[in-house]
Amino acid sequence: MIISMKIHSSRADVDAVCDRIREFGYKIHAIEGEERVVIGAVGVGDVTACLESLEAMPQVEKAVRISAPYKFVSKEFKKEKTIISLKTKLGSTDIGGDEFVVMAGPCSVESEKQIMESAEAVAAAGGRVLRGGAFKPRTSPYDFQGLEGEGLKLLAKAREATGLAIVTEVMADKDVGLVAEYADILQIGARNMQNFALLKSLGSCGRPIMLKRGLSSTIKELLMSAEYIVAHGNPNIMLCERGIRTFETETRNTCDIVAVPVLNELTHLPVIVDPSHATGKRKLVPALARAAVAIGADGLIVEAHPCPEKAWSDGAQSLTFEQWNTMMRDLKPYMELWKANRPAPALA
Amino acid sequence: MIISMKIHSSRADVDAVCDRIREFGYKIHAIEGEERVVIGAVGVGDVTACLESLEAMPQVEKAVRISAPYKFVSKEFKKEKTIISLKTKLGSTDIGGDEFVVMAGPCSVESEKQIMESAEAVAAAGGRVLRGGAFKPRTSPYDFQGLEGEGLKLLAKAREATGLAIVTEVMADKDVGLVAEYADILQIGARNMQNFALLKSLGSCGRPIMLKRGLSSTIKELLMSAEYIVAHGNPNIMLCERGIRTFETETRNTCDIVAVPVLNELTHLPVIVDPSHATGKRKLVPALARAAVAIGADGLIVEAHPCPEKAWSDGAQSLTFEQWNTMMRDLKPYMELWKANRPAPALA
Amino acid sequence: MIISMKIHSSRADVDAVCDRIREFGYKIHAIEGEERVVIGAVGVGDVTACLESLEAMPQVEKAVRISAPYKFVSKEFKKEKTIISLKTKLGSTDIGGDEFVVMAGPCSVESEKQIMESAEAVAAAGGRVLRGGAFKPRTSPYDFQGLEGEGLKLLAKAREATGLAIVTEVMADKDVGLVAEYADILQIGARNMQNFALLKSLGSCGRPIMLKRGLSSTIKELLMSAEYIVAHGNPNIMLCERGIRTFETETRNTCDIVAVPVLNELTHLPVIVDPSHATGKRKLVPALARAAVAIGADGLIVEAHPCPEKAWSDGAQSLTFEQWNTMMRDLKPYMELWKANRPAPALA
Amino acid sequence: MIISMKIHSSRADVDAVCDRIREFGYKIHAIEGEERVVIGAVGVGDVTACLESLEAMPQVEKAVRISAPYKFVSKEFKKEKTIISLKTKLGSTDIGGDEFVVMAGPCSVESEKQIMESAEAVAAAGGRVLRGGAFKPRTSPYDFQGLEGEGLKLLAKAREATGLAIVTEVMADKDVGLVAEYADILQIGARNMQNFALLKSLGSCGRPIMLKRGLSSTIKELLMSAEYIVAHGNPNIMLCERGIRTFETETRNTCDIVAVPVLNELTHLPVIVDPSHATGKRKLVPALARAAVAIGADGLIVEAHPCPEKAWSDGAQSLTFEQWNTMMRDLKPYMELWKANRPAPALA
Repeated sequence: MIISMKIHSSRADVDAVCDRIREFGYKIHAIEGEERVVIGAVGVGDVTACLESLEAMPQVEKAVRISAPYKFVSKEFKKEKTIISLKTKLGSTDIGGDEFVVMAGPCSVESEKQIMESAEAVAAAGGRVLRGGAFKPRTSPYDFQGLEGEGLKLLAKAREATGLAIVTEVMADKDVGLVAEYADILQIGARNMQNFALLKSLGSCGRPIMLKRGLSSTIKELLMSAEYIVAHGNPNIMLCERGIRTFETETRNTCDIVAVPVLNELTHLPVIVDPSHATGKRKLVPALARAAVAIGADGLIVEAHPCPEKAWSDGAQSLTFEQWNTMMRDLKPYMELWKANRPAPALA
Repeated sequence: MIISMKIHSSRADVDAVCDRIREFGYKIHAIEGEERVVIGAVGVGDVTACLESLEAMPQVEKAVRISAPYKFVSKEFKKEKTIISLKTKLGSTDIGGDEFVVMAGPCSVESEKQIMESAEAVAAAGGRVLRGGAFKPRTSPYDFQGLEGEGLKLLAKAREATGLAIVTEVMADKDVGLVAEYADILQIGARNMQNFALLKSLGSCGRPIMLKRGLSSTIKELLMSAEYIVAHGNPNIMLCERGIRTFETETRNTCDIVAVPVLNELTHLPVIVDPSHATGKRKLVPALARAAVAIGADGLIVEAHPCPEKAWSDGAQSLTFEQWNTMMRDLKPYMELWKANRPAPALA
Repeated sequence: MIISMKIHSSRADVDAVCDRIREFGYKIHAIEGEERVVIGAVGVGDVTACLESLEAMPQVEKAVRISAPYKFVSKEFKKEKTIISLKTKLGSTDIGGDEFVVMAGPCSVESEKQIMESAEAVAAAGGRVLRGGAFKPRTSPYDFQGLEGEGLKLLAKAREATGLAIVTEVMADKDVGLVAEYADILQIGARNMQNFALLKSLGSCGRPIMLKRGLSSTIKELLMSAEYIVAHGNPNIMLCERGIRTFETETRNTCDIVAVPVLNELTHLPVIVDPSHATGKRKLVPALARAAVAIGADGLIVEAHPCPEKAWSDGAQSLTFEQWNTMMRDLKPYMELWKANRPAPALA
Repeated sequence: MIISMKIHSSRADVDAVCDRIREFGYKIHAIEGEERVVIGAVGVGDVTACLESLEAMPQVEKAVRISAPYKFVSKEFKKEKTIISLKTKLGSTDIGGDEFVVMAGPCSVESEKQIMESAEAVAAAGGRVLRGGAFKPRTSPYDFQGLEGEGLKLLAKAREATGLAIVTEVMADKDVGLVAEYADILQIGARNMQNFALLKSLGSCGRPIMLKRGLSSTIKELLMSAEYIVAHGNPNIMLCERGIRTFETETRNTCDIVAVPVLNELTHLPVIVDPSHATGKRKLVPALARAAVAIGADGLIVEAHPCPEKAWSDGAQSLTFEQWNTMMRDLKPYMELWKANRPAPALA
């Protein structure tokens, strides 16, 4: 159930509405907006009586039921795309706004030289966000687990040098504070998409979140996980399609590219595509990147490395800088078409 | 193993090479080419001795081993894209050539009025091939099974009226001759992709084949099924990605869009995308169509119907003519980019 | 809709009921039973009026709607398990009856010696049906495609020698008559589960059918394919769970063992488990065979070969005769428990 | 690489070997055993030289390479099944030993009355471990999240009253200490199988772990996650097959029952089957439970509830106590067969 207050309602008006909602036994989960206050409430049972009672209040503009199990992230709650603004010394980058945003960088932060070279290459070709893992989720306990705090400091140095924003993964709730000190966007990996303890801890981290879809998670489950984060206080989320697990073995995962227009219809959250993890093979990345722009994603996150064959992780799917440059040049006309079609929705 | 003869080899030269191959115990499967004869041979065991012996023959240009289990359909056998030319009274349409080809029409042929209206709408917006099922594979024996022979005649009438080529499904080897009389392209449905008896019967039908990927078939299996058709005599095949079966339920199937660049790398056969079956929802079709153009497919096959809500089958995924027209108009700039990038391969 | 006539209804009574059904626009699909005639009818739309009209007829005992999309194969149509009786010179083997039935033999018929040795080993350890492929569905056109007619003759010889019944695959509608001359059970392979032309041709073949579940077919689709065969006249069908396709690679397929109790609840048709194809590894076969008995299957079909490492196909999943003997001995106490629990339904 | 010391090696002998290993650049991960010390070491590169050097040392009995990516959990490391002993006031329960162990109880701890009644019913029918969730992973943030600390106290009370051991889930590394205070076994849920931060924190918790397989995790990944826990110090792990995600919708998940014999061959860790989550439907649970005993699992974990239709979670898959009693009675002869076949391995 969402309740839109009339413009310029007073604090007392809002409190009165909240009191009424609580009398009906519902729980209040968020109060948003600047000009206009919007109240979200959830609970069980028939909301008809409550809606009627609320609509009878003079300061209530509209009170409606949201049928989707995900409330705050649904289009029913908010029609306009959520814009996530990143402030860097180069200015502002808006994800979900009028520019298609490309994020790139190595899988893991390996050394100062490696990350600085990467940042420069990313910035030079028009990337706006630098990716790089300091905490690495690895299938084997004997594989490289990331430079951790040291890696975060190197990312900060690269941001200082290039003006790129930083996206990096956080794997444990105990590390959320630390990573939030350094990163502009906190990434939640596919294997943690339903790590509910971690999701809850993101509510108050003060940073936007990139939530990656789990390997066998449905689109609805992805939205429910995003709802966890919003319900705990953080509405700044972008979703990431990075391939799901199927029987096909030619590619590392199977990119569910249609998840992009499906999400564009169900949610106001921006949607990013990761063609590197989706394919697992660098030569397939540029083609999928073109498709992601064409189908209406809001951005890309791509792996690129100064020397992929020596990368400590994910070398096979990392672009060389030359491939990265070529890809960015070739994407330009597609990005222009993308821009020309904004804000025409992805579903036509 | 493939053996390229020198240019202008004589029939006797070719026969001598074939005899040598048979002496080594291999089987000869095809002799192609106009200026230059290319011989394909398959068999078990180490081919090194045979290759050396053949290369020592004066009229042999080159003899090489093909490592892929699919031989004639592999890029190792032939590098240039296979072009399938359809002759209609409007001229020639090349699939795999310099134009992106769109095929469209209703799921089933239902009546003369329905198929004629559809054909006109398809042609008016730039479609080149009319689709329409006369034999329908239906999960239930109690569902509409197609107009069969009557449907084929209506398709021929629509071709006569509009100059569109015709693609329609054949489900049984006993019907191959009949369907080949009427259709320009014989479609093999996803559920018959490994109906080997049917595949073999296509070898001598004299028509190009559109082979749809099975619901849980790997890319390699798709190529092996195409190899069946070539090995039995018919090299004119286009492959069709139409979605695979996964756990996701928001869409009817999951489009494995990356199969397009994977196939472009492994085979010289043209690749078509079917966004209607891949999604099962008409509003998702235009977005996926854009992605298919951008990623480097050779064409699309799309369902459109004069009145989708009254369609006898697949109504939910059929475009209205208005949506069809809009989609074709919106695809134009993507098709221009596609054309500008030819013959740059899809994988950059 | 099914209509049970009163006991000892006359032919005229039945005709009157059929006429009434046709007046309402429904199609009559089967008339079964000895003492009591049961009429099945299908069609679209609300059947309430028709049911009421039929129940008002004096010779009608009961007229009920069947809600499942599969009609004749559903438990709603018939509660008691269908028993498929095979007559051999050793007497009768009932599938779906009071004995757990084991079928075994090589993947392909390779030679007289191989199939005769196999038949003897199968019979000696208590197998009742000999399996062996004469027509082989192979992914590659260059792989061994079966001895065809010659293979069928060898199977007949093995039956003559041992008294075992024969199950063998038919792949093309044109071969149904030929295979039905030799085989006691016609097997439809997983890749042909939705080859509707083939399914229709089985209606009048006069032999029981073993219908294998497709690699990515749902349980409901399996039942719909069985319904095709019944709707075309052949009610003697056993279903076979042989593993579905998933992301797991340790086994060739993933055995959906729970399909057995699900099917036992939805249909009256017997259910067979194929642990050889389900696992792809011979050492896993005995364990899965035990589970299949315990969960309430009606039988097993297992691959065994005189010399698996030299088998022309499926060697890795074929048991040696020693393993076959050990497995049969170890299954005995499980089969006794199985028998003691009959006719207690599998779902307790 | 594992190094077995000769019996009665001294501390100094062991230290000398460890020093030698470190000189070769490998990392030492575990030292086990009472009579005989066994040293595990991991690292990259060719271990041949190191193995030779170690075998030349007088106190080294044997030094061998382990080829599997999972080391300490592999059969190569240890052939005999790991036995996990739970001490309760009723005595000791061994998981992986000579008794098939059944764990049961409600999905969530809801109230003192509910959990006490459940514990009594579980114990009365021969269950040895009580399950019940205090921390609940729920797809929706608005669903019941568990009684948390209060739930743990109620579980402890039920243990006190009945002598059952307790298994309950832990979802966050910050809660590991708290849960370990109350539980005899810490359960890691399917969605956390690759929550590597959580896995690491289990190394020093001092309790056995039940690690559930992820919804789309391979058997190898399950073993790698177990390896994380051992590598961080805790070798007492049982694995749980609880169904994987496929396209089939008749059941909540698809039970990969063959994972049991596969695991029995690859690892020495005990394997438990959860037929409740695997099926999602209570009426399918007893049949799958029989199959799990027959195929050679070491135990079951089953949901049962005083009043399933009023359960706060998972009601549809929870047995009534009557069904629970019937199932346990019906499983008895299967458990006797199971016992008679011990220690014959599951794979025959």
